[in-house]
Amino acid sequence: MENRGIDGIVVIGDTTLANPDLTYVVGGALARGGLYFKRVANDPLLVTSVLDIETARKYRTVKQATTYTDLGYERLIGKYGRGNAYAQLIKMILERLGVSGKVILYGRSDLAGGLYLADRLRKMRVAIIGEKSPTILESARQTKSTTERSIMRDVGQKTSKIVDSTIGSLRNLQNKGGRLYCGKQRATVGLVKKWISIALANEELISPEGTIFAPGAASADPHNPGNSRQQLKVGVPIVFDIFPQSERGYWFDLTRTFVLGRADAKTVKMYETVREAQSSALDSMKDSASCEQVMTVACNVIERNGYMTLRELQRGEAREIRSGFIHSLGHGVGLTIGELPYLSLLSTEQLVRNQVVTVEPGVYLPGFGGVRIEDTVAITQNGVDVLGRSRQDELEVT
Amino acid sequence: MENRGIDGIVVIGDTTLANPDLTYVVGGALARGGLYFKRVANDPLLVTSVLDIETARKYRTVKQATTYTDLGYERLIGKYGRGNAYAQLIKMILERLGVSGKVILYGRSDLAGGLYLADRLRKMRVAIIGEKSPTILESARQTKSTTERSIMRDVGQKTSKIVDSTIGSLRNLQNKGGRLYCGKQRATVGLVKKWISIALANEELISPEGTIFAPGAASADPHNPGNSRQQLKVGVPIVFDIFPQSERGYWFDLTRTFVLGRADAKTVKMYETVREAQSSALDSMKDSASCEQVMTVACNVIERNGYMTLRELQRGEAREIRSGFIHSLGHGVGLTIGELPYLSLLSTEQLVRNQVVTVEPGVYLPGFGGVRIEDTVAITQNGVDVLGRSRQDELEVT
Repeated sequence: MENRGIDGIVVIGDTTLANPDLTYVVGGALARGGLYFKRVANDPLLVTSVLDIETARKYRTVKQATTYTDLGYERLIGKYGRGNAYAQLIKMILERLGVSGKVILYGRSDLAGGLYLADRLRKMRVAIIGEKSPTILESARQTKSTTERSIMRDVGQKTSKIVDSTIGSLRNLQNKGGRLYCGKQRATVGLVKKWISIALANEELISPEGTIFAPGAASADPHNPGNSRQQLKVGVPIVFDIFPQSERGYWFDLTRTFVLGRADAKTVKMYETVREAQSSALDSMKDSASCEQVMTVACNVIERNGYMTLRELQRGEAREIRSGFIHSLGHGVGLTIGELPYLSLLSTEQLVRNQVVTVEPGVYLPGFGGVRIEDTVAITQNGVDVLGRSRQDELEVT
Repeated sequence: MENRGIDGIVVIGDTTLANPDLTYVVGGALARGGLYFKRVANDPLLVTSVLDIETARKYRTVKQATTYTDLGYERLIGKYGRGNAYAQLIKMILERLGVSGKVILYGRSDLAGGLYLADRLRKMRVAIIGEKSPTILESARQTKSTTERSIMRDVGQKTSKIVDSTIGSLRNLQNKGGRLYCGKQRATVGLVKKWISIALANEELISPEGTIFAPGAASADPHNPGNSRQQLKVGVPIVFDIFPQSERGYWFDLTRTFVLGRADAKTVKMYETVREAQSSALDSMKDSASCEQVMTVACNVIERNGYMTLRELQRGEAREIRSGFIHSLGHGVGLTIGELPYLSLLSTEQLVRNQVVTVEPGVYLPGFGGVRIEDTVAITQNGVDVLGRSRQDELEVT
């Protein structure tokens, strides 16, 4: 903060849900959110509803916590009206904390209301400034504490368990001439998604962004979630990409690709290529490794096997590519499902110990199918620590 | 818009998840969000990722949809850098649409980044203004279209089914001297929550904010979600408040209070009072009814039965109340779980046809327990239309 000439930060939000910055500074979830203040070199202060103050204290992240009521917020509402009392409250607290320089507002908020608030504060001579990404808090959130890594390892183990038990259930489907049945019914993507939802519920995880279970040609589109009505059959690649979130707000990201029954030579080659790309990339990862270089390692393996990669775009040889390795190698995971650092050709950063990132090379052939293998790992001094290991490490499920 | 002197609005977001304004204007979910423009009297324009454009077109809410790539966004990133290209893109589109007056930015966003964007646009002479709540979009979202009401009715029916099947399962627990068993295990709140999670998964609903299942003294705190380890027993009130969200983004809110086995006289009186308060309030609701009056109707019934209500605060007779009817009667529901209109003593609004609101009186006695009954209803010309009816309309479950 001092380096950037900032005197204080304020983090706001009417909930911690989908509000990673507020969740981060509070240390957990608060149903009605809160108002967090930090002045350079001072202890932070948290203001919450009377209904949430005990929860906030339990997290022990912020030593000094108080309530809107104790600060006389209701009186401010009476005096200034609901629309303006919030700005008055923030100004009052900033004054008490002695903040007089530049202040950054964080937290997810409705933009029209957030801008109204910022403009009110500026009119009251609070020096609110904007900040482009990566913000101070986004940067801080990149490296995970021991507690955070332990929560994420737990989510990873639960996620692996769900993947393995789902694949176990798929193994039990009845094969009648290449068509798959669950009892007398044709097995569909919708049926598998229901199994996954129930398994998530059993592990006390949620999946706000859904789950990808894409068989056959659908797997060639990295973001196709799979059509619920599609019937399962043997012999085609299925991309199963699951990204649940725990009650504490932390996400995890894991992908396996497999074929029910025997795979053809084309799919086997894609799979072997992606697996080699992932293991080479993982071997190149450690504290201080270049994010762009790690992506390049994966591209080298994939190109050597005859598929295109995003480097075609970089070399200006194509305007867009739809076939081959058409996305970046990975992204940070934590209180969001996609954050810094990015393992991309455009990255200029180096990996740092205790970052948590996905490593997910893929090869996609439009009209045919795709293969992606993804693990989420923590960066260590000399390598990586895989958080949550699925037992599924072969292409064919028989 | 014209009345407020606004020339255009822009709605932004990197996802529609937890972004009700963007979900509303798009007509559904977009994994990577989008950029929506509307100039007074012109058709809106939506810009999305190439990966989401087909989904966006499918919703048919916005006739004119295009992609970042088609607008040359990648070129802008090359020229201005990632941090500034977004502002350039917005300015370019606003110019093409002929917007020259005041513009409001909507959508949920990180405030520091949103403010940076607004300040960039202002430097480029785009007249961005903030707006306090209720914003134009919040106001528009209050009344639900036929499609929205039909989605909410569907969520309501599924929610009622979950409540009724959960109560059905509770009925099957074995009572051994007042303690309740599921097989050889003591039945706990955690067990019931697992049932609920599985039932939600089966109905393809999610519950990002959890579920309240609070027995005994815990039910006296309206926001206590219930302690997973708490063991169930007969004779105490259990508040079961469930608020799931559908894939389309719409929420529903339903509460039942019941006693497993026989209820004591104190609980019966609370229950009868709350039921009468709810039915009197419902009888008073219709298009043009005053929100504050509807709340007053519920308070009258509850006070007549000897409990306190929030009117004690209004009369200045107490600084805070912890016993009796200690919250407002209801709130709007839609793409958020709490929005306008509010059925509160401080409301100045009238109900309007096709608003969807909760009606949830409660009576709470600290140390003893609470009773709350909640339904979600659509306002009609002459009354209300209850969306989703739980069959549970008695206190005792035997």
